Amino acid sequence: MADLWQEAMDHAVAVARKAGEIVRHAVHNDMKVLCKSSSVDLVTKTDQKVEQLIIDSVKEKFPKHGFIGEESVAAGEPCVLSDNPTWIVDPVDGTTNFVHGAVFVLLFQLEFGVVYSCIEDKMYTARRGKGAFCNGDPLQVSDQKEINQSIIATEFGSNRDPEVVDVIFSNMRKILCLPVHGIRGAGSAAINMCMVASGCVEAYYEIGIHCWDIAAAAVIVEEAGGVLMDFEGGPMDLMSRRIIAANNKTIAERIVNEIKAYPAIRDDAPL
Amino acid sequence: MADLWQEAMDHAVAVARKAGEIVRHAVHNDMKVLCKSSSVDLVTKTDQKVEQLIIDSVKEKFPKHGFIGEESVAAGEPCVLSDNPTWIVDPVDGTTNFVHGAVFVLLFQLEFGVVYSCIEDKMYTARRGKGAFCNGDPLQVSDQKEINQSIIATEFGSNRDPEVVDVIFSNMRKILCLPVHGIRGAGSAAINMCMVASGCVEAYYEIGIHCWDIAAAAVIVEEAGGVLMDFEGGPMDLMSRRIIAANNKTIAERIVNEIKAYPAIRDDAPL
Repeated sequence: MADLWQEAMDHAVAVARKAGEIVRHAVHNDMKVLCKSSSVDLVTKTDQKVEQLIIDSVKEKFPKHGFIGEESVAAGEPCVLSDNPTWIVDPVDGTTNFVHGAVFVLLFQLEFGVVYSCIEDKMYTARRGKGAFCNGDPLQVSDQKEINQSIIATEFGSNRDPEVVDVIFSNMRKILCLPVHGIRGAGSAAINMCMVASGCVEAYYEIGIHCWDIAAAAVIVEEAGGVLMDFEGGPMDLMSRRIIAANNKTIAERIVNEIKAYPAIRDDAPL
Repeated sequence: MADLWQEAMDHAVAVARKAGEIVRHAVHNDMKVLCKSSSVDLVTKTDQKVEQLIIDSVKEKFPKHGFIGEESVAAGEPCVLSDNPTWIVDPVDGTTNFVHGAVFVLLFQLEFGVVYSCIEDKMYTARRGKGAFCNGDPLQVSDQKEINQSIIATEFGSNRDPEVVDVIFSNMRKILCLPVHGIRGAGSAAINMCMVASGCVEAYYEIGIHCWDIAAAAVIVEEAGGVLMDFEGGPMDLMSRRIIAANNKTIAERIVNEIKAYPAIRDDAPL
């Protein structure tokens, strides 16, 4: 199947670049499209246009492949990885993300991942066993083993349930006071994970994310030498709505020891 | 003095651009120089080189002008705004700021402000009464008046004193649960304020910053139509180590009502 993977990955890169042009055009016409909360309608319009472009383009080339994405799941389609090659797509990740602009996440059965940060024009790619790259340059996680010298990425999320907010703040506080060198959040799970892969931050953790937010970047982190972990210290569970991505096991386990999870409905839970 | 202001501002832009080249060169040679906590030495080296360039260049052109900056204050020089034209300089702001890279902050007696986000190549400029610009395009704050629709920028800061961390987290939590649309932090006070000026976020608040972190961007925020406030709701006090910058009075006052300050030694306190 090697040639098919490569063909699909090349297609993913091409379609991400094309989608990036649409978003950049929208941003050019309204500088605030990706940063202003009041431009939600404009963002949604661009989002839908880009998602249609990606799905049409992939379906034309690979008519038998399946899709998992925010829109398809919202429309009642199942969120499970079958034996059938499946693309996990998040056409415009981080709509309130003023820093990186749009991100396209495409993944093919955990075989490759493509994350395109289109405003910065950074194309992150990885194929299982073949390394991770940003615009063609190889990526390597940080070699830092001291949590005190580490920068940790996380997000506040969108859940405002007081008990959830309690856990989020208590986790952040524990991490901050280890102490770490700093806490950052790029406003996008995929970009936070690409930051881990690039060695810009040592780790990223979050609860509440969906499989389409992290799938592509998961391949990129592992191929850059990083580790993925569940909140209990076991292997990452793509559908569990939580993830720790780190430069190494030492840092990942240190985070596991400090943070706790709050309950979140699994992505593959029956509707 | 009009011509002198313009001459000084033009000089600030030129020297910021030159300093940006040095930082970009350093980043090019070591992609992680601006993002890895372990590259502190390299960052410091670049920082010192850039600061020397700026000070030498300004002193040559304006031999009688004064300077306020982290390095000069650390060396025991007074941190006061006198009648003498004074440059407030922060050569490489946000050294652990992997998002924007370096920022040069130059200010001339609150008459103009220049903030250069050199990795993104965004030159923010403002002169009192003449508007604010990014790469020549006029800046305008967001017209959002609803706090629930707003994105607020702030930072965790570097102080890990438990009582300080208590206040920081309690403030963030209050803001998050108003609720707001989101909380962001670019990792640099100057860039957070330029985001307010650009309409990308509605407001920014922080305690613990120094005058050189905010002075130039303060002019930019006001010239983009925004407001600056103290934590008590009065006018901003440049030396007080705290600031609220917002798109309008409604949002600024809403924040004043929610957050509280922790004590910080004033920048102009006797040594």
